[in-house]
Amino acid sequence: MKSAVSSLVRSNNSLISRTLLYHSSKPISQSPFFLSNIPKNLFNQRYQKLQFSPNSTSIMASLSKSEQAREPPALPLPSPPLTKIGLCQLSVTPDKERNIKHARKAIEEAAQKGAQLVLLPEIWNSPYSNDSFPVYAEDINAGGDASPSTAMLSEVASRLKITIVGGSIPERCGDKLYNTCCVFGTDGKLKAKHRKIHLFDIDIPGKITFMESKTLTAGETPTVVDTDVGRIGIGICYDIRFTELAMIYAARGAHLICYPGAFNMTTGPLHWELSQRARAMDNQLYVATCSPARDPGAGYVAWGHSTLVGPFGEVLASTEHEEDIIIAEIDYSILEQRRASLPFTKQRRGDLYKLVDIQRLNSH
Amino acid sequence: MKSAVSSLVRSNNSLISRTLLYHSSKPISQSPFFLSNIPKNLFNQRYQKLQFSPNSTSIMASLSKSEQAREPPALPLPSPPLTKIGLCQLSVTPDKERNIKHARKAIEEAAQKGAQLVLLPEIWNSPYSNDSFPVYAEDINAGGDASPSTAMLSEVASRLKITIVGGSIPERCGDKLYNTCCVFGTDGKLKAKHRKIHLFDIDIPGKITFMESKTLTAGETPTVVDTDVGRIGIGICYDIRFTELAMIYAARGAHLICYPGAFNMTTGPLHWELSQRARAMDNQLYVATCSPARDPGAGYVAWGHSTLVGPFGEVLASTEHEEDIIIAEIDYSILEQRRASLPFTKQRRGDLYKLVDIQRLNSH
Repeated sequence: MKSAVSSLVRSNNSLISRTLLYHSSKPISQSPFFLSNIPKNLFNQRYQKLQFSPNSTSIMASLSKSEQAREPPALPLPSPPLTKIGLCQLSVTPDKERNIKHARKAIEEAAQKGAQLVLLPEIWNSPYSNDSFPVYAEDINAGGDASPSTAMLSEVASRLKITIVGGSIPERCGDKLYNTCCVFGTDGKLKAKHRKIHLFDIDIPGKITFMESKTLTAGETPTVVDTDVGRIGIGICYDIRFTELAMIYAARGAHLICYPGAFNMTTGPLHWELSQRARAMDNQLYVATCSPARDPGAGYVAWGHSTLVGPFGEVLASTEHEEDIIIAEIDYSILEQRRASLPFTKQRRGDLYKLVDIQRLNSH
Repeated sequence: MKSAVSSLVRSNNSLISRTLLYHSSKPISQSPFFLSNIPKNLFNQRYQKLQFSPNSTSIMASLSKSEQAREPPALPLPSPPLTKIGLCQLSVTPDKERNIKHARKAIEEAAQKGAQLVLLPEIWNSPYSNDSFPVYAEDINAGGDASPSTAMLSEVASRLKITIVGGSIPERCGDKLYNTCCVFGTDGKLKAKHRKIHLFDIDIPGKITFMESKTLTAGETPTVVDTDVGRIGIGICYDIRFTELAMIYAARGAHLICYPGAFNMTTGPLHWELSQRARAMDNQLYVATCSPARDPGAGYVAWGHSTLVGPFGEVLASTEHEEDIIIAEIDYSILEQRRASLPFTKQRRGDLYKLVDIQRLNSH
């Protein structure tokens, strides 16, 4: 069980070294890892005539008005597979070993029901609290016994030949803690690791106050990963608040954004579904979310309502708040239809506004 | 009735010449009109130490990570007035004279009910069709008899001492036609004119196909205007689809975005409310929309449902689809509360993404 994660990381495999060097001491401009998992030929098709440099004025001048609205210009969508996603809204307890076994069972059930892609909740192996994060944190890079949660994910992905977007767990790396999502391919290999970029620091007096930054460090890299079931952008919970992240994922050609998340009893009813539908509608892609099941006795009470949203912002499937597994179909060919009907990408006014994807720009 | 509009335009008043020079032959960088209606002292408070230039690298280096997420950096909110808005969801007929009289009566009724700010629908003086636009178009710059619709708005605004965001009418300027919104201040003067930036060209087979670009020309300038009832960004209908426009309005310190709009029976139920709530939630400001009333016999059937949305994305007031006038309170002090609870502006990752407001950048 431990071999897939640990050997991959320890071997300094070229994929992992290019995609997951979050701790590189190189400046970003010398570490173009974040596009390495987008096929080279796709990229070249579009860019062979463009010479990227930090000063992109000359490039932009050669593009049409709508193309200028993204810098670098948006990538085309890859060929669209059809897939079934399973959302596992899990109950989470203080017993980590139970949580891991329980998650494994749920993934197996989802796969048995036809899911080729399984999404887990945010922080599914630990209670959601600043006190718990250091206690439950795992050293994902070390792998094996140092990370029983991801070892399980790797083993199940490989055995069942499915892709797993593994929710998130507290990660320890050196003296820092992160809220981290691991993506495993059908071969059980770790394909990408997303560390929550926007930490959950909010204060709604009398309702909800939480400061993740008390214990956690924010990630430094947006994450888009090519899998057997589509090009997937990853965000964790509060990351969904920042529409810019979804916009740069869409511009990187993502079919689907997965947001493991644990909105609460205040922001859940206010904004959970609205945020998902908005990101899907505005960016014309699929959005999938997965929350822990609601436990009214927990210190932090999750809203639940894990959901799949289509590219018109329509809710395609959703759980209630209790533990549940739902399976839903994703047909990526619909993205092209929606974009033909409402051709936003050709209608943007790059002469008036521009969204810059800074790491992608600097990598060329 | 005609004096307020026409004399203002004809006199080449400095306000109008700075705010409304849509036809200037100067390059944008020499025409910084779009910020001229934001008080100079507010602007200077923030920027006196920053030397803007098209190459802003050195400026950006001196700013914090979150401030870098907007270029130029976001402006602070002006002092927040409390106000009441009236949304006039009007029936529209082929009889232009009737439409003007009818709109006048509705504005008077809204003001009588306490509205200090009145919003009208998109294309309220004409049927919504490419055939009608050239026939009903008015020369707003010439004013007076050449623009009876805006002359009426000016007269009512001045007489009732209210601010009017005058929906939109087809505008003729030289050999071009625009879909144009005029904003009148409490003195009856034309404070701003917004020409729809994103033309409504969509094709949902079997449902709705419309190509505004067959007859209309797109505007070239985002519009934010300071009024007695707050700093207001203007968009017209399809402009709401482009989240970037709302984002640059928020960064220019808008309290409220008004979108006169006429979504249809397909996109209305799908996206009308969702778009408004998303723009309000993501940008933490008020959004107000106003549609024509639904006429099932019209060539283009409007969805209706004119709405005021608060900065948490919450619907505060909404009409149904028939003709109606609703009055609702806007308390701008809530914006600061919401932004303190969910401090997005301090949490954005300007090291990873950046939205550039190109005209504002080039004006400094």
